[in-house]
Amino acid sequence: MLIITQPAVTGAQIDHIVGRVEEFGLKAEVLRGSHRVVIGVIGPEDLIREKPLAAIPGVESVFAVMKPYKLVAPNGAAPPPVRIGGVPIGTGQKVVLISGPCSVESKEQLLSIAISVKNAGARVLRGGAFKPRTSPYSFQGLGEDGLRFLAETRAETGLPIITEIMDTRDLAVIEKYADCLQIGARNMQNFSLLKEVGRSRLPVLLKRGLSATINELLMSAEYILSEGNPNVLLCERGIRTYETMTRSTLDLNAVPILKAKTRLPVVVDPTHGIGLRDYIPQMALAAVAAGADALMIEVHDDPERARSDGDQALVPEVFQDLVRRIRAVAAAVGRDV
Amino acid sequence: MLIITQPAVTGAQIDHIVGRVEEFGLKAEVLRGSHRVVIGVIGPEDLIREKPLAAIPGVESVFAVMKPYKLVAPNGAAPPPVRIGGVPIGTGQKVVLISGPCSVESKEQLLSIAISVKNAGARVLRGGAFKPRTSPYSFQGLGEDGLRFLAETRAETGLPIITEIMDTRDLAVIEKYADCLQIGARNMQNFSLLKEVGRSRLPVLLKRGLSATINELLMSAEYILSEGNPNVLLCERGIRTYETMTRSTLDLNAVPILKAKTRLPVVVDPTHGIGLRDYIPQMALAAVAAGADALMIEVHDDPERARSDGDQALVPEVFQDLVRRIRAVAAAVGRDV
Amino acid sequence: MLIITQPAVTGAQIDHIVGRVEEFGLKAEVLRGSHRVVIGVIGPEDLIREKPLAAIPGVESVFAVMKPYKLVAPNGAAPPPVRIGGVPIGTGQKVVLISGPCSVESKEQLLSIAISVKNAGARVLRGGAFKPRTSPYSFQGLGEDGLRFLAETRAETGLPIITEIMDTRDLAVIEKYADCLQIGARNMQNFSLLKEVGRSRLPVLLKRGLSATINELLMSAEYILSEGNPNVLLCERGIRTYETMTRSTLDLNAVPILKAKTRLPVVVDPTHGIGLRDYIPQMALAAVAAGADALMIEVHDDPERARSDGDQALVPEVFQDLVRRIRAVAAAVGRDV
Amino acid sequence: MLIITQPAVTGAQIDHIVGRVEEFGLKAEVLRGSHRVVIGVIGPEDLIREKPLAAIPGVESVFAVMKPYKLVAPNGAAPPPVRIGGVPIGTGQKVVLISGPCSVESKEQLLSIAISVKNAGARVLRGGAFKPRTSPYSFQGLGEDGLRFLAETRAETGLPIITEIMDTRDLAVIEKYADCLQIGARNMQNFSLLKEVGRSRLPVLLKRGLSATINELLMSAEYILSEGNPNVLLCERGIRTYETMTRSTLDLNAVPILKAKTRLPVVVDPTHGIGLRDYIPQMALAAVAAGADALMIEVHDDPERARSDGDQALVPEVFQDLVRRIRAVAAAVGRDV
Repeated sequence: MLIITQPAVTGAQIDHIVGRVEEFGLKAEVLRGSHRVVIGVIGPEDLIREKPLAAIPGVESVFAVMKPYKLVAPNGAAPPPVRIGGVPIGTGQKVVLISGPCSVESKEQLLSIAISVKNAGARVLRGGAFKPRTSPYSFQGLGEDGLRFLAETRAETGLPIITEIMDTRDLAVIEKYADCLQIGARNMQNFSLLKEVGRSRLPVLLKRGLSATINELLMSAEYILSEGNPNVLLCERGIRTYETMTRSTLDLNAVPILKAKTRLPVVVDPTHGIGLRDYIPQMALAAVAAGADALMIEVHDDPERARSDGDQALVPEVFQDLVRRIRAVAAAVGRDV
Repeated sequence: MLIITQPAVTGAQIDHIVGRVEEFGLKAEVLRGSHRVVIGVIGPEDLIREKPLAAIPGVESVFAVMKPYKLVAPNGAAPPPVRIGGVPIGTGQKVVLISGPCSVESKEQLLSIAISVKNAGARVLRGGAFKPRTSPYSFQGLGEDGLRFLAETRAETGLPIITEIMDTRDLAVIEKYADCLQIGARNMQNFSLLKEVGRSRLPVLLKRGLSATINELLMSAEYILSEGNPNVLLCERGIRTYETMTRSTLDLNAVPILKAKTRLPVVVDPTHGIGLRDYIPQMALAAVAAGADALMIEVHDDPERARSDGDQALVPEVFQDLVRRIRAVAAAVGRDV
Repeated sequence: MLIITQPAVTGAQIDHIVGRVEEFGLKAEVLRGSHRVVIGVIGPEDLIREKPLAAIPGVESVFAVMKPYKLVAPNGAAPPPVRIGGVPIGTGQKVVLISGPCSVESKEQLLSIAISVKNAGARVLRGGAFKPRTSPYSFQGLGEDGLRFLAETRAETGLPIITEIMDTRDLAVIEKYADCLQIGARNMQNFSLLKEVGRSRLPVLLKRGLSATINELLMSAEYILSEGNPNVLLCERGIRTYETMTRSTLDLNAVPILKAKTRLPVVVDPTHGIGLRDYIPQMALAAVAAGADALMIEVHDDPERARSDGDQALVPEVFQDLVRRIRAVAAAVGRDV
Repeated sequence: MLIITQPAVTGAQIDHIVGRVEEFGLKAEVLRGSHRVVIGVIGPEDLIREKPLAAIPGVESVFAVMKPYKLVAPNGAAPPPVRIGGVPIGTGQKVVLISGPCSVESKEQLLSIAISVKNAGARVLRGGAFKPRTSPYSFQGLGEDGLRFLAETRAETGLPIITEIMDTRDLAVIEKYADCLQIGARNMQNFSLLKEVGRSRLPVLLKRGLSATINELLMSAEYILSEGNPNVLLCERGIRTYETMTRSTLDLNAVPILKAKTRLPVVVDPTHGIGLRDYIPQMALAAVAAGADALMIEVHDDPERARSDGDQALVPEVFQDLVRRIRAVAAAVGRDV
């Protein structure tokens, strides 16, 4: 940690800062420049971060040299893939396709879509049973019935299932059915929920919040790992910017950065990311070229009657064609589907 | 709801759109312009919103004429104030000061600060017992001990207390102690939590999310009201923008807009909003001039040793001086503290 | 144009609105919903846009149905490519590589880099002679000397050249040397400059402003076309968001949207877009997968001594390797370099 | 300047960094922490900034300790006010009101509005003759005729005039008429224009760009001062955020920060800032409470027929009432109008 002092800092203030740093059990090293004094604070970074160094008189700003996350960072060893059911994600070779409807609406709907996407090449089935909706008057999901339909569809198709958890109290029931827990963008900093899924035996797909920095995404993943669950997938799903022509701004810049800064697989969700059906395929291809380990794409076989997000679902034929193009781009970057 | 059709829409597509609208039990009215056809959809707005109209072929975009919230909107009657303990907020006359430390650290710390802020003019005490922290390695709050200290301090000072709830499972214990529940910015779209506090008898201070639009804030308030709890206070606490010199960008534009669009009192938190101790007073004064019903300002008597946010806490003497200036600005806009 | 009236609009106000619309020489059509009245305004869209309809009492908001741009929009015919020197961009087949240093520093530096990038596969040379710099104390470019070095390098390598124009007064001198004019992000809404280059015989590469919406980018292109110059290339180069880990957020979402909404070729600049040398290759590949017609990538042979942006320049060997990978992804999406 | 090295930096890389720093004529001081090595670079800050230190192998990031601006910063002496005609702005005592129409439309319109705003308390007249418009098809201003009307209105009312300059070639003609030059938000980083007005004898009102950081605003002011013109007014006029309910987000946080970081007077433009007529008064009052030295507010006597921005102009009666309220808030913060 580096303390930048104010231009007019006095000798007494510097002594006070150094004293305070030492009172905290840390070591201080004073570096005098031509116009400013900088004080390096040396010691365990976690301890340093806890201290309100910027509150000390004479301090202008505090600059963290070390990253605040540890468990999610590369550690030299090859990062193991995260398995959803029997499907490994993050092998470096495979680009895994996760697909299915936004919401589980009925057994028939789900099974029909699951068969289509499986035939097209998807290896994991998604579907929401508990739905986070901006409005209390919107469809809130089928709840445990939806979970049951997911499990039955897994039994018939062999596809492992991923579904969203919104409430710490729902973990037990969702664990009975699901292969992977999803934390939605709006709950990325629901720290109680992060701790709870950190104690689950299931892997967790953690979506980046609408205005979460990459650092904050990593800190939220760190919450899960610090509770003992190492199986976290990071998902870029679009951030909020000033642009209104797209639903969100899919931030593909995050893909190579996350690959470099963490040991965790990176999933891209172009459906919510750009949110416009016509442009989802191009963004899916771009995500593969940027290095994504998996894609999550919503498919519906009757979008005009979908109970949520019908306007951004791909129909099965379009998805099938897209998978063909994804295979080509994956091959171009040395991977396969 | 207005459906804007694509420039090349065909007659058959228009017929299909109209048919779909009627299948949904709604009425369609076709308006032909010189270059575009617009279809007005008439009927219960909630029903209309549920339908994926934008997924119908030939539709370019869908434009909502009505606001999606109802309960939070003005309804002609004078909105009643929301009471925290015995203190009414939103009377139109009083500007209420809510103050206290970021975190409850000990009984002594809390009581000492509570006495200072009460003497300066604060009428509600704040203090966090369950703390949402970006890092799992940071101080997470004292939990129920913190709640107990708050209740004891209320007994000694008479100040009602507000404290944050982060988990649906904590409602029962927090309700035993608190006078008002706070939902933090990161949980503004934690819909399970919103529903849960919507069933509480306590008022709820709802903080605007870091990248929440004003509409989304109102929809989150609507969740609480729709569960039966009418006592919601809306809190502007800074939004996330590209500017890095401030911690957040306190969006005072929201104050007059929220006052116009809702029946709910508006609270401003300049501490987190600008996040720089030296500039909190000016933002507090500006908030009063903009029409805020209450201010929430953090105070600490030993910021250099605070366990959270020490660098943005005001010391008691500065707070006392600020209250004097707030009284003057409040009087200038026809109110008092 | 649609006028949404206020909930409490009176009959007299509706009459006044209709009267005003007719006074402007336009036609009004009143559509009554169950809760709101909407007034369609029919007539020449340009004329309608000029009128301050939202200023009329009883109007809540005004909603434009038509796009505000015309010349840049698709018109049914296949859009002709834009030629820089002899190199056509936007053929649908070729992905053109534009490369070179950020600033022209000397004849030797420029020629050496030009030869490298040409050998690697670049077909257009970039280099700044007039440099927009945030600080007045930074290197401002070599001016006309830089232009001369560019022209000499063209003579020796055969690569046509693109360089930035910052001032209307510089057009004559730049036209003497350059094959394509670049308008930088900070001048995207310098309307005097747009009009001036609209009267040039040279093509114009127009960079998206740091916080420009896609619509605003198109309106700025419309300025150039409306002055008679049809040869405009649109360049996505990163937008400003709250994320600080990257220099900008390269918005690849803009690529498929611009391809759909305009007749103009789309160029992507991953160098400024992500601004971190290590991640430029992945973003370049993603841009090709998303459908870019050309890429602009900065290369420097001695980045540690570069006079601007050395920290984001690729060295020639990395660029050469990148071109190889670009070829593979281009082939995967049915194109070539 | 501080160089943070990568975790895996080698001794040879550190030697190379130190060598490079010394080759640049600077001094390097190595600070070894428990996990990282930091290298302080000591010497003239301008020289340091020019060097691409981040491009050197082994460097992770570079952190500037000193501010990049000099002339705009406080220098110990009391900053002199900037005079528009005979009206001083930035005295610390007066809050100056600048008002008038968005565009000069005719002599009659301008004179009528000027008389109203003068009677209400405005001391400077604004009006656009050269108009920056998003669309080439919108009204572009009356040009020199507009300037003439401004000068005639000054002669009749005594109000000094401020008007926008968009093109370096227009300086001579505008200087013949105006008392103050305005640089619009979209030209805040039009560096050619900044240099040109830096050579003018007239004061310059510099508007913050739509996505300009406070630091960038100061660097643009630095351009003007570095050319010899010390008379710059900084204007906060709203920034671009994700919020769409307001035209821009008026960032009042900038007011106390600019007052602390510079010697220059701070003007707030609530008209463009929030862009909604009904809420401009509250934002004007808040700006005064936050410490603004002047306000710029648009007034029109027939907004329904205004040629630009009619929907955000105040009518004279509302402005008059607002001035009364501004006087009260100004008095509450120890100032007057």
